[in-house]
Amino acid sequence: MSEPVQFPLAAVVGADELKLALCLIAIDPKIGGVLIEGPRGMAKSTLARGLADLLGDGPFVTLPLGATEERLIGTLDLDAALGQGQARFSPGVLAQADGGVLYVDEVNLLPDPLVDLLLDVAASGTNRIERDGISHRHPARFVLIGTMNPEEGELRPQLLDRFGLNVALEGLPAPEARQHIIRRRLAFDSDPQAFCAQWAPAQEALRARCQAAREHLESIALDDQALAWITERCYAAGVDGLRADLVWLRAARAHAAWHGRTVIEEGDVEAVADFALRHRRRSGASTPPASAPAEQASRPEAAGGQGDWGAMPPQPVAAGARREVPNWAKKP
Amino acid sequence: MSEPVQFPLAAVVGADELKLALCLIAIDPKIGGVLIEGPRGMAKSTLARGLADLLGDGPFVTLPLGATEERLIGTLDLDAALGQGQARFSPGVLAQADGGVLYVDEVNLLPDPLVDLLLDVAASGTNRIERDGISHRHPARFVLIGTMNPEEGELRPQLLDRFGLNVALEGLPAPEARQHIIRRRLAFDSDPQAFCAQWAPAQEALRARCQAAREHLESIALDDQALAWITERCYAAGVDGLRADLVWLRAARAHAAWHGRTVIEEGDVEAVADFALRHRRRSGASTPPASAPAEQASRPEAAGGQGDWGAMPPQPVAAGARREVPNWAKKP
Amino acid sequence: MSEPVQFPLAAVVGADELKLALCLIAIDPKIGGVLIEGPRGMAKSTLARGLADLLGDGPFVTLPLGATEERLIGTLDLDAALGQGQARFSPGVLAQADGGVLYVDEVNLLPDPLVDLLLDVAASGTNRIERDGISHRHPARFVLIGTMNPEEGELRPQLLDRFGLNVALEGLPAPEARQHIIRRRLAFDSDPQAFCAQWAPAQEALRARCQAAREHLESIALDDQALAWITERCYAAGVDGLRADLVWLRAARAHAAWHGRTVIEEGDVEAVADFALRHRRRSGASTPPASAPAEQASRPEAAGGQGDWGAMPPQPVAAGARREVPNWAKKP
Amino acid sequence: MSEPVQFPLAAVVGADELKLALCLIAIDPKIGGVLIEGPRGMAKSTLARGLADLLGDGPFVTLPLGATEERLIGTLDLDAALGQGQARFSPGVLAQADGGVLYVDEVNLLPDPLVDLLLDVAASGTNRIERDGISHRHPARFVLIGTMNPEEGELRPQLLDRFGLNVALEGLPAPEARQHIIRRRLAFDSDPQAFCAQWAPAQEALRARCQAAREHLESIALDDQALAWITERCYAAGVDGLRADLVWLRAARAHAAWHGRTVIEEGDVEAVADFALRHRRRSGASTPPASAPAEQASRPEAAGGQGDWGAMPPQPVAAGARREVPNWAKKP
Amino acid sequence: MSEPVQFPLAAVVGADELKLALCLIAIDPKIGGVLIEGPRGMAKSTLARGLADLLGDGPFVTLPLGATEERLIGTLDLDAALGQGQARFSPGVLAQADGGVLYVDEVNLLPDPLVDLLLDVAASGTNRIERDGISHRHPARFVLIGTMNPEEGELRPQLLDRFGLNVALEGLPAPEARQHIIRRRLAFDSDPQAFCAQWAPAQEALRARCQAAREHLESIALDDQALAWITERCYAAGVDGLRADLVWLRAARAHAAWHGRTVIEEGDVEAVADFALRHRRRSGASTPPASAPAEQASRPEAAGGQGDWGAMPPQPVAAGARREVPNWAKKP
Amino acid sequence: MSEPVQFPLAAVVGADELKLALCLIAIDPKIGGVLIEGPRGMAKSTLARGLADLLGDGPFVTLPLGATEERLIGTLDLDAALGQGQARFSPGVLAQADGGVLYVDEVNLLPDPLVDLLLDVAASGTNRIERDGISHRHPARFVLIGTMNPEEGELRPQLLDRFGLNVALEGLPAPEARQHIIRRRLAFDSDPQAFCAQWAPAQEALRARCQAAREHLESIALDDQALAWITERCYAAGVDGLRADLVWLRAARAHAAWHGRTVIEEGDVEAVADFALRHRRRSGASTPPASAPAEQASRPEAAGGQGDWGAMPPQPVAAGARREVPNWAKKP
Repeated sequence: MSEPVQFPLAAVVGADELKLALCLIAIDPKIGGVLIEGPRGMAKSTLARGLADLLGDGPFVTLPLGATEERLIGTLDLDAALGQGQARFSPGVLAQADGGVLYVDEVNLLPDPLVDLLLDVAASGTNRIERDGISHRHPARFVLIGTMNPEEGELRPQLLDRFGLNVALEGLPAPEARQHIIRRRLAFDSDPQAFCAQWAPAQEALRARCQAAREHLESIALDDQALAWITERCYAAGVDGLRADLVWLRAARAHAAWHGRTVIEEGDVEAVADFALRHRRRSGASTPPASAPAEQASRPEAAGGQGDWGAMPPQPVAAGARREVPNWAKKP
Repeated sequence: MSEPVQFPLAAVVGADELKLALCLIAIDPKIGGVLIEGPRGMAKSTLARGLADLLGDGPFVTLPLGATEERLIGTLDLDAALGQGQARFSPGVLAQADGGVLYVDEVNLLPDPLVDLLLDVAASGTNRIERDGISHRHPARFVLIGTMNPEEGELRPQLLDRFGLNVALEGLPAPEARQHIIRRRLAFDSDPQAFCAQWAPAQEALRARCQAAREHLESIALDDQALAWITERCYAAGVDGLRADLVWLRAARAHAAWHGRTVIEEGDVEAVADFALRHRRRSGASTPPASAPAEQASRPEAAGGQGDWGAMPPQPVAAGARREVPNWAKKP
Repeated sequence: MSEPVQFPLAAVVGADELKLALCLIAIDPKIGGVLIEGPRGMAKSTLARGLADLLGDGPFVTLPLGATEERLIGTLDLDAALGQGQARFSPGVLAQADGGVLYVDEVNLLPDPLVDLLLDVAASGTNRIERDGISHRHPARFVLIGTMNPEEGELRPQLLDRFGLNVALEGLPAPEARQHIIRRRLAFDSDPQAFCAQWAPAQEALRARCQAAREHLESIALDDQALAWITERCYAAGVDGLRADLVWLRAARAHAAWHGRTVIEEGDVEAVADFALRHRRRSGASTPPASAPAEQASRPEAAGGQGDWGAMPPQPVAAGARREVPNWAKKP
Repeated sequence: MSEPVQFPLAAVVGADELKLALCLIAIDPKIGGVLIEGPRGMAKSTLARGLADLLGDGPFVTLPLGATEERLIGTLDLDAALGQGQARFSPGVLAQADGGVLYVDEVNLLPDPLVDLLLDVAASGTNRIERDGISHRHPARFVLIGTMNPEEGELRPQLLDRFGLNVALEGLPAPEARQHIIRRRLAFDSDPQAFCAQWAPAQEALRARCQAAREHLESIALDDQALAWITERCYAAGVDGLRADLVWLRAARAHAAWHGRTVIEEGDVEAVADFALRHRRRSGASTPPASAPAEQASRPEAAGGQGDWGAMPPQPVAAGARREVPNWAKKP
Repeated sequence: MSEPVQFPLAAVVGADELKLALCLIAIDPKIGGVLIEGPRGMAKSTLARGLADLLGDGPFVTLPLGATEERLIGTLDLDAALGQGQARFSPGVLAQADGGVLYVDEVNLLPDPLVDLLLDVAASGTNRIERDGISHRHPARFVLIGTMNPEEGELRPQLLDRFGLNVALEGLPAPEARQHIIRRRLAFDSDPQAFCAQWAPAQEALRARCQAAREHLESIALDDQALAWITERCYAAGVDGLRADLVWLRAARAHAAWHGRTVIEEGDVEAVADFALRHRRRSGASTPPASAPAEQASRPEAAGGQGDWGAMPPQPVAAGARREVPNWAKKP
Repeated sequence: MSEPVQFPLAAVVGADELKLALCLIAIDPKIGGVLIEGPRGMAKSTLARGLADLLGDGPFVTLPLGATEERLIGTLDLDAALGQGQARFSPGVLAQADGGVLYVDEVNLLPDPLVDLLLDVAASGTNRIERDGISHRHPARFVLIGTMNPEEGELRPQLLDRFGLNVALEGLPAPEARQHIIRRRLAFDSDPQAFCAQWAPAQEALRARCQAAREHLESIALDDQALAWITERCYAAGVDGLRADLVWLRAARAHAAWHGRTVIEEGDVEAVADFALRHRRRSGASTPPASAPAEQASRPEAAGGQGDWGAMPPQPVAAGARREVPNWAKKP
């Protein structure tokens, strides 16, 4: 069997936020992974697969269902061990994904130790194996894309924070959008090759734009003004830790590159704000101690999940609502 | 022992909705699987087995009780491995079911990872094996039929959504219907061969009608009018995602083919509406934001489980009631 | 050690309902299994063993304590596998029980997958093995007899329904009955052979009566009048599904045969009603929609567990009370 | 190491009820096992070991801590299997205990399947092994003695009922009794041999009295008068099933034999009543339907745990209080 | 690595009660084990190790973390089994501890079966092995010392009772005591050898005093007066069973020996009262039926954990408070 | 792959308390481990890694995710066992960490037995292996650094107490601090070698200061005045046990050495107070019995987590609030 043809990202109807987030990651993979939240039936996996094509030759690896830790990190090569008496490393999924995308469906339903491991390796870009007499290390630089339906369980805040960006798909498109989506899908299903051929120019343009932005990226400074905008907003949002700031800055730069700008503008910062903040807001976050005007504090959740990030000067951002953190069980 | 003779679908009394759904699937297997809900003692498995005969030569495979993941996806052929030193794939249930029907009784009582796996493979038509040093892929195109007694536990919404159609059997037939059913069953039990011979013409007619509809299917357009009817109804019903739309459209076309029509009529759309929507309604679904007349919203559940899909022009459908989604445990 | 002598069913004092149910099963094993409910210390197992003698040469097999699924369905014959390199089937308990009785004490305390398996095989009369490289099928036609003390846990309704008949033993016999029972037991315990010899004529008469009824059975029609009586009553009782109707009809015929009748009389239908309905009543069953007189509905549980099934014309039967169905955990 | 010397039962201070129960069992082992309840530190195991000496040469076997089912019932003899290619049975604890006493400390803390197994074999006197290719049966006639501290968990009623007798040890002896007990214990501890030599005549007398009663036992009829006394009392006490009646009758006869009587007197019946009834009373038992005078019924628990069984004519016995039956989990 | 030097017991500041208890055990190991309760950071293990030095040459064995039952009781010697075809016993921790001290840190966090096993062997002085084809018995006479922080979980009363003595360490020493302790610890840590050399005379004196008391012990009668004092107090305290009396008597004699007395005085009885009673008091103990003056009963917990055992004549002791006994789960 | 370059501790912005604590440990590793608490995204692991550089050549070992007990303590060298028939020890993580730092991320999510083991070995400096026929002991002197996000679960008090120092990272730095931190991070990420070269002088100065303090340490007396200050404060704070005193004294000396002082001043004692007390305060601690002025007691939590340790004379410290201790489950 040959590999099935993928639905081109350029042909996706709607889901603009997610498409943007995927492009930003394709432009600067250092931003980190993406966590896609949304209800059932939103083609989350189709969209995620679209990223692979933007990244160039990198592989797109799907975490197999029920994969074990061993399968993930690799294990002793039994053949070599028995046949030649050598302890040799047999690579796992993490090695396969090096240089590409590692896609994990319903990441919130994985056992915690596997999620830990995935995020650890994704962050360090290195997989270390220390077991069964093997002591090995290999590069494992990949973009981690996870999907979850939050109705079916949450990730621990510690794990949420380690996804670079977070995008939520809207659950209920309007009838017209539905028709567009379905028509494209039917066209693809009836003749995938023809469909892809038809969309090849648009897809190529998308790829080229990403490529150009990627090449252009380093020429855009991560300058102090952008950093100031971002840190003030993070502080105002009461976001724990500094991963949000760092991710936001990189994402804003990628956004500037995507628009061909030579400097990060405030609009770039605002355009990606929700990607960086969405999963790092606290459930019962109180308003920040300084610089938060009282009237802002008294509008609870006014600037919530879809806060207005228009052309206004930097000002405090009230934290949107997230579900309460449950009690986490110990690792088994 | 030779294979036991099956009760012919044509001889089934009542259960018209389920018979229709099974025929639609036989006409267009791309609609996806069927989830049959109903109380105990409704011959759910007899009905499901009836589908196999309509599909032609395809096998009818029953998931064995307590089957393991290995048994399902296949495993390393130990004989070949030990005898000839080759890592060869030994096919599992998914390979057996290719081209036919995979029947899973009480699918709601299966461990979640197995259900995930079943639905994944059913959707992609491909079984990938990546374990024990085997890296293999083979076609696994089958119609998945599951039964469940919802009194004994629900499936997660994510999994429900991935069954194409959903049919509920009525629990309490009237005395006359009961008598018909029992008489047929007794006749079959006392002499299965004779019974089948007696019903052969009717069964052959049913098979032929399905076959004709199947051949006729591609000539019926999945046209914009039908799509508009459907997407509006899905939107009005507040159904998450787009799988409902796609399934509904295909099912409506199969229904048109079943009636020998050359175009999808609104009656076709309505006839299969509940099959596509039943398991995708949300428990506490609020009325849709647009186009839903207020009086509709104030009649909670008026158009519930058996919504009236008569000859009226398209109008919003209030979502029927489903049980509340419980909290789902993590995968072990 | 030789097999211990069994207490003859003919010598059992009281427990008339259970003795009748066992005889009916001996006359028509197609009725299905029997579930015996009762408190501790009621000699449930002694009574169940009595059935074996009525069935002719069939074996009486007791499910060993803690039996595994493998032990039940059979497994790979390791000797043949290792010695002769052949994958041969080594039969299990289900094969041993073929043609006889399979007795399961405290069936409600078994793990659900084993109960599922037992009932599945008992219903189909066939044991299929698909594991460890074995693909085998053999006949496994047996009567399943289970006992349970409902104080110690219930079976799922799905599983209850699959037992043909259900009999409850009265917990507290009167002093005179107790004395009779104890005296018989003491007599048996002090000299089993002598006791059996003394009861041989009565036991032989019982066996002969069963044998005669069995031979006579097929000549009694499962006629429309009997079926009408039964389906109306089932409908009135609000019983889910149709297994009750089918079982009841067969049991009524066996009862007619037991009394040497040539046609099923209404008295036969009534005599076995509780056997067929007892475990199929719903806990909170509402009165049936049609034909149920209001005064009946307002006498809650008046016709409960031991409903009056005298010589009256057919009329609706209010459903007796059963315990609420608990929430069933998923299979592990 | 040689076997340690046992404390002679004749030297035990107090615990008269338990000593009597143990003697009755020594006289008629068919009465069944004994369940000894009591708080910590009451030398329950010392008392139980005393029974072995009364039984003659029978072994006294203690169930080892954490014994597995395999260890209990025996297993395949691996040496014979590997060395001589024969599947031979290697006997377990049940085989060792044949003809003697099997002592199980804290029986209420054992896993349910092991308790089931122990009681099953104790009742049938036979151990059947059907596993690992072995099909074996051997006699396993032993008296089962279990101890439990009910503060630490109950047995299921089904299992309680299968112990013949039940004795509760008083938790708080008076100072003088304490002194007697301690002095005896110190004397034994400082020189066990000397202590046993000193008590040899008393112990020998006890053994002889048991032996005489055992020989005399069969000459005492299990007559109708005794049976009538007992069944009426069991009925009045609302005891489920008939095991109480049978055990009580045997225990009353053994008591008569112990006192050298030739016929069971009512005093014998009364003397052992609490042994037979204590663990078979229901928690919320209502008064019996017939023959129970109202005033008796209105004295709840007046004749409770230590009911007055004096010289009065037979009359109903109100059931004493037992703890509520908890919900029992399924077997794993 | 050579064994690290131990902190000498003579150099311990404070903790007088525990030091006394340890000396009593060193004088008469038949008293049984010691359970040391106390909060974190009280050097419980340092104190326990001090006992080893008082006992002479006996080993001091620490139960390794996570030790298995096999590791504890010993197992089959695999080398001998495979090499020489002999089933030989390979001794475990219990064998190592014979003649010395077995130290178990946080005994309340051990799995119940291991605690059972430890206490059983400690009580009998014998380790019996019946598994893996081994049937072996060896002496295992050791003093069991356990520590627990009761904030982190209790032992079952049955297990508490089987520790001979129980001592609780005071959690919050006064500043001066803290300074003494810390200074000693610092001196030891900076030069253990020098520190031990400095304390050698005091430690030698302590050892000699224990040795003298041990030799003198048997000459002190366990006389009736002492026994009367003790049993009356145990009765008044409502202590279940008689282990308290026996332990108390031995401990009082050891205390007399420690003070060079030739007879047990009432002061000896009082000095060790709390050691014997502390863990055997019941949580909700009612006042004893006889001889307990009413005013005593009305002063709940007045004579609690640290009851006044001065020079008064014997009088009833109200039971101090213990935590409520929780519900104990079954053994797995 | 070569080892990645580490971010130099000297370049860390803010986190002064943690940097100080790490330096103190580097100066006197006998203080014990450090437990770092803080929310997500605070670069806890970057900071912890910084300690390795201060310690000299010692290794920095990270506990691998999902490490087993065997992996931690070492195991039998299978190669040697099979090849040469020798039971040889194959060292584990504890052996690797000898002389350096053992870093455990999210230590509160580890299974309790592993935490126990880690703290035990860290305290004793010795790893003992007694399993699989190996009896081995090797030095394992390392500084244990654990991190935890207390939102995700607590450690047992017993385990908390065994960490020498405890530092909490502030969760929400101000915008300017955020900018500093991010700028440094970006500089490091874009060219780690250049960044380290730039910071080499500062880092070298830090290292040198630690080295100087380490050499100077022994010349500073652990004098009585310092000890008095500390014990009084510990007593006033109601801290259980004496580990706090000992740790505090050592930490105060290290602080004095860090500042080049020749004697411990009260300021040194105060500067490290919270490190020693933070994790040893009790949740519901009542005010100390003596010397605690009433007004102090009536200001609950006034001197809580960040108590004022200025230039005032020694006075009682009210215990700050800690979360309630939950109920701890037994070890499995």
